[in-house]
Amino acid sequence: MNNQEMTVVIKDEPKKGLKISKKLIPQNIGDDEVLIKVLATSVCGTDYHIYSWDEWSQNRIKQLPLTMGHELAGEIVKLGKNVKNVKLGDIVSAETHIVCNNCEFCKTGQGHICQNTKIIGVDIDGCYANYVKLPAQNCFVNDKEVDPKYLCIQEPLGNAVHTILHFDIIGKNVAILGCGPIGLMAVNVAKAVGASKVIAIEINEYRRNLAKELGADVVINPKEEDVIKRVLEETDGLGVDVLGEFSGNKFAVEQSFKYIKLGGKMSILGIPNKKIEIDLASDVVFKGITIYGVTGRKMYENWYQMKGLIKANKLNLAKVVTHTFPLTEVEKAMEIMASGNSGKIVLIPEHE
Amino acid sequence: MNNQEMTVVIKDEPKKGLKISKKLIPQNIGDDEVLIKVLATSVCGTDYHIYSWDEWSQNRIKQLPLTMGHELAGEIVKLGKNVKNVKLGDIVSAETHIVCNNCEFCKTGQGHICQNTKIIGVDIDGCYANYVKLPAQNCFVNDKEVDPKYLCIQEPLGNAVHTILHFDIIGKNVAILGCGPIGLMAVNVAKAVGASKVIAIEINEYRRNLAKELGADVVINPKEEDVIKRVLEETDGLGVDVLGEFSGNKFAVEQSFKYIKLGGKMSILGIPNKKIEIDLASDVVFKGITIYGVTGRKMYENWYQMKGLIKANKLNLAKVVTHTFPLTEVEKAMEIMASGNSGKIVLIPEHE
Amino acid sequence: MNNQEMTVVIKDEPKKGLKISKKLIPQNIGDDEVLIKVLATSVCGTDYHIYSWDEWSQNRIKQLPLTMGHELAGEIVKLGKNVKNVKLGDIVSAETHIVCNNCEFCKTGQGHICQNTKIIGVDIDGCYANYVKLPAQNCFVNDKEVDPKYLCIQEPLGNAVHTILHFDIIGKNVAILGCGPIGLMAVNVAKAVGASKVIAIEINEYRRNLAKELGADVVINPKEEDVIKRVLEETDGLGVDVLGEFSGNKFAVEQSFKYIKLGGKMSILGIPNKKIEIDLASDVVFKGITIYGVTGRKMYENWYQMKGLIKANKLNLAKVVTHTFPLTEVEKAMEIMASGNSGKIVLIPEHE
Amino acid sequence: MNNQEMTVVIKDEPKKGLKISKKLIPQNIGDDEVLIKVLATSVCGTDYHIYSWDEWSQNRIKQLPLTMGHELAGEIVKLGKNVKNVKLGDIVSAETHIVCNNCEFCKTGQGHICQNTKIIGVDIDGCYANYVKLPAQNCFVNDKEVDPKYLCIQEPLGNAVHTILHFDIIGKNVAILGCGPIGLMAVNVAKAVGASKVIAIEINEYRRNLAKELGADVVINPKEEDVIKRVLEETDGLGVDVLGEFSGNKFAVEQSFKYIKLGGKMSILGIPNKKIEIDLASDVVFKGITIYGVTGRKMYENWYQMKGLIKANKLNLAKVVTHTFPLTEVEKAMEIMASGNSGKIVLIPEHE
Repeated sequence: MNNQEMTVVIKDEPKKGLKISKKLIPQNIGDDEVLIKVLATSVCGTDYHIYSWDEWSQNRIKQLPLTMGHELAGEIVKLGKNVKNVKLGDIVSAETHIVCNNCEFCKTGQGHICQNTKIIGVDIDGCYANYVKLPAQNCFVNDKEVDPKYLCIQEPLGNAVHTILHFDIIGKNVAILGCGPIGLMAVNVAKAVGASKVIAIEINEYRRNLAKELGADVVINPKEEDVIKRVLEETDGLGVDVLGEFSGNKFAVEQSFKYIKLGGKMSILGIPNKKIEIDLASDVVFKGITIYGVTGRKMYENWYQMKGLIKANKLNLAKVVTHTFPLTEVEKAMEIMASGNSGKIVLIPEHE
Repeated sequence: MNNQEMTVVIKDEPKKGLKISKKLIPQNIGDDEVLIKVLATSVCGTDYHIYSWDEWSQNRIKQLPLTMGHELAGEIVKLGKNVKNVKLGDIVSAETHIVCNNCEFCKTGQGHICQNTKIIGVDIDGCYANYVKLPAQNCFVNDKEVDPKYLCIQEPLGNAVHTILHFDIIGKNVAILGCGPIGLMAVNVAKAVGASKVIAIEINEYRRNLAKELGADVVINPKEEDVIKRVLEETDGLGVDVLGEFSGNKFAVEQSFKYIKLGGKMSILGIPNKKIEIDLASDVVFKGITIYGVTGRKMYENWYQMKGLIKANKLNLAKVVTHTFPLTEVEKAMEIMASGNSGKIVLIPEHE
Repeated sequence: MNNQEMTVVIKDEPKKGLKISKKLIPQNIGDDEVLIKVLATSVCGTDYHIYSWDEWSQNRIKQLPLTMGHELAGEIVKLGKNVKNVKLGDIVSAETHIVCNNCEFCKTGQGHICQNTKIIGVDIDGCYANYVKLPAQNCFVNDKEVDPKYLCIQEPLGNAVHTILHFDIIGKNVAILGCGPIGLMAVNVAKAVGASKVIAIEINEYRRNLAKELGADVVINPKEEDVIKRVLEETDGLGVDVLGEFSGNKFAVEQSFKYIKLGGKMSILGIPNKKIEIDLASDVVFKGITIYGVTGRKMYENWYQMKGLIKANKLNLAKVVTHTFPLTEVEKAMEIMASGNSGKIVLIPEHE
Repeated sequence: MNNQEMTVVIKDEPKKGLKISKKLIPQNIGDDEVLIKVLATSVCGTDYHIYSWDEWSQNRIKQLPLTMGHELAGEIVKLGKNVKNVKLGDIVSAETHIVCNNCEFCKTGQGHICQNTKIIGVDIDGCYANYVKLPAQNCFVNDKEVDPKYLCIQEPLGNAVHTILHFDIIGKNVAILGCGPIGLMAVNVAKAVGASKVIAIEINEYRRNLAKELGADVVINPKEEDVIKRVLEETDGLGVDVLGEFSGNKFAVEQSFKYIKLGGKMSILGIPNKKIEIDLASDVVFKGITIYGVTGRKMYENWYQMKGLIKANKLNLAKVVTHTFPLTEVEKAMEIMASGNSGKIVLIPEHE
């Protein structure tokens, strides 16, 4: 693959949009790195932020041009000389947090909050490309019998797993607040591991329907129904045992404290862009609840949990992935995702 | 119901056998007690021990005659004056451990190991009868839409839930050692809460088949296969993450240490009648495993977990219960259970 | 003790103040109750609220007159006929939450958030008296060799234990926010169980000095120092592992999110009377922290933990209790507590 | 330091003994390695096994000559080019398990049971030398104000911390079975973190006295007292909440099941050379206890816990270290350790 070109999707200008371009296949694979042939990649909210060049992207992205993308499944085609955890031909997915291994957090099994994290497709060139060069330690080996178009979505699936499995939900009532792609996966995971009743709350009809198909026992449209009243009705007046927050909506988050049970658990992945106001006395202290902030994926417990669930065929990933396009149709994918009328969207790079 | 008679199954003589007899419906309901009309009851190994009057029974049973039976579902028909946790008409099942509420264990959420436990159908008259008088605190209110013949088996199901859910099994490989009724329930529970691969080990063909139907991914007949070899093959050479022991077989337990994974977890409900020999150094210390002894049911977490799983229709209780007889055919039930060719056997008292 | 009178401290009018009065020693001891001769009682913030008849008291207190007080140590002098957990002559302290034993929370080891809790000295007559009648189940038997003036403060000490021991603090850096009596006890408990560095934050000089004597490694006066800057300096720039919040101060709570470590744990007992504003994205989600609302005491784990610590002489209760008065000087005690220049204040009823 | 010689203690012949010898200071420091100037090292049971060339050593040691020793504190004097976690001049101790970082155990925070572990001073040349070359990832940076003769014993101290802190012991009764150096440290750690009563069981008088000085509330000589009877007396007839096993004595381990409390926890570090016999039914299942096998140190939680405890001056390491010799007197150290009349023995290499 020396001096061969490949197709890449790059962000090259500080404004909305992206560009399909050509670049050399990465040449210098470091001792601890691998080269991966990308078989499938998928679209994340972060990718859309960069595409649309919003305020967050303007502050966060340090250097253009940047090859976009971070969710992938691919084949190992080249190995750095120190690499031992993967071998040629392995089908891998990537943990997108490149962590330092040296800070107190990395040293105590909390790599997901490493102080020195770099993110694929944000801080270094990403995987919207035919090939991508990555640190070997970020590769997680998949079972080959699973279609890469499902394997590539494990990074966001890992967010759902982290959020939903942080607290015990077996036999319990669970609310999923916000049914974007990760919320939808959370519905699916919650039912797969024995939640009793899963209540999905989402304003978009397409996504409410998808939540239902993925196993939600109750779906609520907060534009049409009194969410607090309905959730209490569905839970013998007690509220939900566990709440997974995926909406990032200030009002929805504030409201959710009113329908969580005494002693309940709240896992928050959504990121509101405004401060939220909490009645700490009534809604946290006297209720005796626990709130957990979710960053990334527990490395690599959440990956092994996913692998086990996928292997046992417990998840319905065929329903989670609602659209598949060639990589070059990435702009179309971005716009569909923005419409809200999708689950996860997968992009397939063309290989000759 | 004053001075009315009812049918009871009693143990009246210190030898094998039992007797269908008549007795007054319990008259003096204490302030903290209830009278329950028994709708369904089921057969436990303990009942068989008492029926066959084995050594354990001879040492354990303090007084004859004794009305047998402890697993039940029934309707509350009379309330002691202090009773608040149930009301007339409620369909309840009973926790069979009557605990003291006063010892350190009861006071710290460990009622299952209360020092002063009395057991229904062993220390006090049981529920192989049309009516049974019980402490109100032992009643757990069921959803009325579930058939009592499934509700009555929650006490042993609670043993399975305690054993299997004590350690995290989501996405993990699990071995179930011994597929008597509780082992079979454990197979079902493990799959219901997202175990990846469930390996059931059992010599009886009928039960192996039932394990398969209840979701076991692999069944092993230890009389025909090398269990260690097979389990390692099924788990990439690593062994199982979690093992639930239900066989009480000395050899099987000793062997199981060889196919549990490094860092693995072992929950033991089975009760061998001989000492077991363990290579503590190689099989516990260097493997870094954890072993947990299971007594009864966590009161009442395990009951709420069951209720949530049953409500969500996650369990296949219709397959767990393989036989249903009128209460008066209890001897036939005992013999079928002894044959090993059954799952759970339910007995239905006749009410006019 | 039939028809004998005793001294009581009552709230009889809906305005600031209280009254020293006479009342019959409680006569009708229920089957599940005991009569306790009060040997020592202490002053809680709640008592001061009732004394000063603030807005909270006006809304919360249902009936006047009310015998005040809920923290006590005393001797069992009469037993209801069903009582088994204590005996005549036992020296007991009381858990002040009278719980229902029947709700899901009580049934699953979460009595501290029982839905039907009644509180001694708030919902029923309290222990600012020579004798008090209480449910036997609320009595916790003490070691007789400890002075009652220390035993009576176990109820608030249990709050400190609940708050501080909910998360693991062994070898970790801990901030105690607010050094009223419970915050002071928290400082003492944290050091007793192996916290590495305890940083106490408090505006009152008297209490800062007391915090220091009780083991605080660092004390900060937020009126004179930049708390965030100082805590970060004291923790290698990382912030504290665990934070116990006892101040109930809106600004202090909001600020504390800035000096808690990534992955840190926050236990909140203080009850702000205003909503707090949180930057959920930066301060909870991306930091991966956990927040826990503390109500009451875990029943009765926290009591056994206290008993073990007191028995081992690990706590410096002689320093926590700064003032002791006869019960009849209760108003003086209230005013000293209000000044902030005290630790815990104990009241001793006079017995002939 | 090119081509300079240093003093080393080597095992060169397959028989009892060791040799003081000369060797070149390690020259080729790999990219991920460091060179450490050894300031203090200490004697472990493993070193004695190798010294005495017992059966275990004969099977375990793959290649002679071998530079012995694995417990150390030293100064970083050379850095491989990729090294980032330490810098020149840092005073470090070493985790002696060199783990692979790639297996499932390493990938899920369980490096202490890594399948591919290599051990310093066993599988590679050790630190009974003026200088030692080690993987940088095994270095843990110490506070410089602590004397290296205490810092070097953190590796075995970490075993004690792992064993004792695996289960919650705050306010609880704890038995320490076997008071060799690690058992002694366990006594000290248990008291430091708030155990209520620590009962140390040991046949050697010197060590019993040391246990007492390190905080044991009760010491028992099993040759003179009935251990079961005494422990039950000391624990209100209930037995200990937590037991740390450090003796490796078959009889002592078997006996300990009789004085552990219902629901008790047992952490086992000692390695019996015979199988132990357990009455699983009575002593594990019906007691509802938990048993945990301890290997190495949790990497690196246990190291951070130690650092926090040492920083707060909670441990009495000056008493744990009973002897200090020049490195060249290593044989004398071995013989004293074999006598049982010592705590930890430290060796100091001479540097010009």
